[in-house]
Amino acid sequence: MTTQQQNTGVTAAKGFRASGVTAGLKASGAPDLALVVNDGPLLAAAGVFTLNRVKAAPVLWSEQVLKGGQVSAFVLNSGGANACTGPGGFQDTHATAEKVAGELGLNAGEVAVASTGLIGVRLPMDVLLPGVEQAAKALSADGGEAAAIAIKTTDTVHKTAQVTSAAGWTVGGMAKGAGMLAPGLATMLVVLTTDAVLESAELDAALRAATRTTFDRVDSDGCMSTNDTVLLLASGASEVTPDQAEFAEAVRAVSADLARQLVGDAEGASKDIRIDVTGAATEDEAVDVARTIARNNLLKCALHGEDPNWGRVLAAIGTTKAAFDPDRLDVAINGVWVCRDGCVGEDRDLVDMTGRDIVITADLKAGRASASVWTNDLTADYVHENSAYSS
Amino acid sequence: MTTQQQNTGVTAAKGFRASGVTAGLKASGAPDLALVVNDGPLLAAAGVFTLNRVKAAPVLWSEQVLKGGQVSAFVLNSGGANACTGPGGFQDTHATAEKVAGELGLNAGEVAVASTGLIGVRLPMDVLLPGVEQAAKALSADGGEAAAIAIKTTDTVHKTAQVTSAAGWTVGGMAKGAGMLAPGLATMLVVLTTDAVLESAELDAALRAATRTTFDRVDSDGCMSTNDTVLLLASGASEVTPDQAEFAEAVRAVSADLARQLVGDAEGASKDIRIDVTGAATEDEAVDVARTIARNNLLKCALHGEDPNWGRVLAAIGTTKAAFDPDRLDVAINGVWVCRDGCVGEDRDLVDMTGRDIVITADLKAGRASASVWTNDLTADYVHENSAYSS
Repeated sequence: MTTQQQNTGVTAAKGFRASGVTAGLKASGAPDLALVVNDGPLLAAAGVFTLNRVKAAPVLWSEQVLKGGQVSAFVLNSGGANACTGPGGFQDTHATAEKVAGELGLNAGEVAVASTGLIGVRLPMDVLLPGVEQAAKALSADGGEAAAIAIKTTDTVHKTAQVTSAAGWTVGGMAKGAGMLAPGLATMLVVLTTDAVLESAELDAALRAATRTTFDRVDSDGCMSTNDTVLLLASGASEVTPDQAEFAEAVRAVSADLARQLVGDAEGASKDIRIDVTGAATEDEAVDVARTIARNNLLKCALHGEDPNWGRVLAAIGTTKAAFDPDRLDVAINGVWVCRDGCVGEDRDLVDMTGRDIVITADLKAGRASASVWTNDLTADYVHENSAYSS
Repeated sequence: MTTQQQNTGVTAAKGFRASGVTAGLKASGAPDLALVVNDGPLLAAAGVFTLNRVKAAPVLWSEQVLKGGQVSAFVLNSGGANACTGPGGFQDTHATAEKVAGELGLNAGEVAVASTGLIGVRLPMDVLLPGVEQAAKALSADGGEAAAIAIKTTDTVHKTAQVTSAAGWTVGGMAKGAGMLAPGLATMLVVLTTDAVLESAELDAALRAATRTTFDRVDSDGCMSTNDTVLLLASGASEVTPDQAEFAEAVRAVSADLARQLVGDAEGASKDIRIDVTGAATEDEAVDVARTIARNNLLKCALHGEDPNWGRVLAAIGTTKAAFDPDRLDVAINGVWVCRDGCVGEDRDLVDMTGRDIVITADLKAGRASASVWTNDLTADYVHENSAYSS
């Protein structure tokens, strides 16, 4: 596989057009509406959505659309989450899908919708619907970058990734947000596209396998979104039926690339942190321990301060139900085993934490399973961004 | 019941002496060693400890002491948690208890020990043991305030409380820390004393009932400590056997007073927040929902910014498994029902959040159970204090 750069994100694969325009939903005047259209010949699709029980209107809508297994277009707006907006909010989503369908001559039941922004505020449909007309006119076979820009909220950079197989097919994608799929922060939206020839069930298997170890294991701040949506659309335009394992790996690679970009651009973060848990009895326990470490505010503050405070790692592990013996726990920070057998190990002064990347390794010595979770430090900038967000 | 002020904290009840001295464990030179002695005639005691599976040496020691149901003295140090210190750390705790026993002519098996401070560092016993001699000499029947001062770590004020019954007995106490019992932050230590005549089993019942709805429901930052300890000691010196219900209420009142003081002095906090969950199917679900709301970093930032961001309350509730219908949730902030039936309610501009106290009410409309959890906002000062703590 090679990475191609000539056309980026959701239009890297053949058979897709995209656009990103300024409808006027954001006070800043930045682009706020993206449209991705699958020109086929296939319209196969798979999706995963937030597990939050409080789901935004577009999530409820798109879950229904995906049940049909066909998506011809996907419209995404920033500047408003359309969550906790009641029946009126759902009608707004429906009207948005109908508008896309009308502009492009499609069936509204095959138009997926995603929204991101502040919860609890209705979308200004008098602004959004003309934006859809504009987005439809702007569709282009190299519109992937414009679309990625239009879905940004607090993102400082837009995120795209793509992988092309020697067999002649491509998987590309775009993402916004700084958090995880389920739970997820302040709304992660991801669109993956491929021109490989695949059925929806095959897409679904590849997508679920990929998200399980990528987007699902990004935990920037432990807050689950009402709007998280990840769709994988296949056009079949390459006319190549891929090897399933190679295709699954390509979807995983693009997802991992985008997930890594999300962590790298998380709100207010100054450190990108990977928590590796090894020696767990089961993978579920490894994930649980890694996630619990990743969510410990005291530790996240210490890491921000470049303080190799391994005691806070142990205190976090101790709150889980995973199999381990407190007197046998080993913890390394950036490769220095500062904790051995539950107490002081190598000299903490040997730990170099000056770089942006930090790796914490916790060996539970209770089995052979392992897992990694990606997170960020907790900073004054995070507090500032999130205390001023809606005001 | 009335509150008496002439003698405070752990020496408000008759039969107790206490002291607080500077052993030299803290670089600041602030007092760091407290001693509380029960002069009887009873030595009845009950205790609750952190549920963290990584327990500090003094917790492991004191759990054993409490199994005997008798505590003649309780020695507490700040300036070091003696957690994750291995067998050597446990020997240090044992030696501390032996030293107290030797100085006072007691049985070391009846001397409880608590420590608070940085995890993973051995205590300097050459400094601590002479401090014990000093503390034994300083014991006084009005030493409650000095003891409360000596157990402070990042606390900005010392915390004491007391209640006296018309029947002639008193419950008093002191606390340090800013968090909850289980889970608990950066070490909550609480000592309650009474001169009422009670057996250990009666003390245990009153203590567990009290902590369940007070210390257990303070959740400043969701981080569970390795050292949390709450002991209730009875001297019987009043020679009055109390009405059990009145006694239980007194223990609850003193615990609630101290818990409230902990929230009011939490690290870096600018808001004291009570989360009231009503209409829950069960009390456990009410507590779970309240705790989940209390731990949501995005919401805690919004409250810091005086932003009535009720969408973040709903997003937090949606991550729980409690019984509720997302389309029927009501949320009030400081009495203004900003969310009705899962969507926009009263005008959010009506919410006054300028004061230090904030009350969030969430009505699940799924039953008749309710619960409250106390927390704080998330601030840049919290990040600063906890990123610089051990460095």
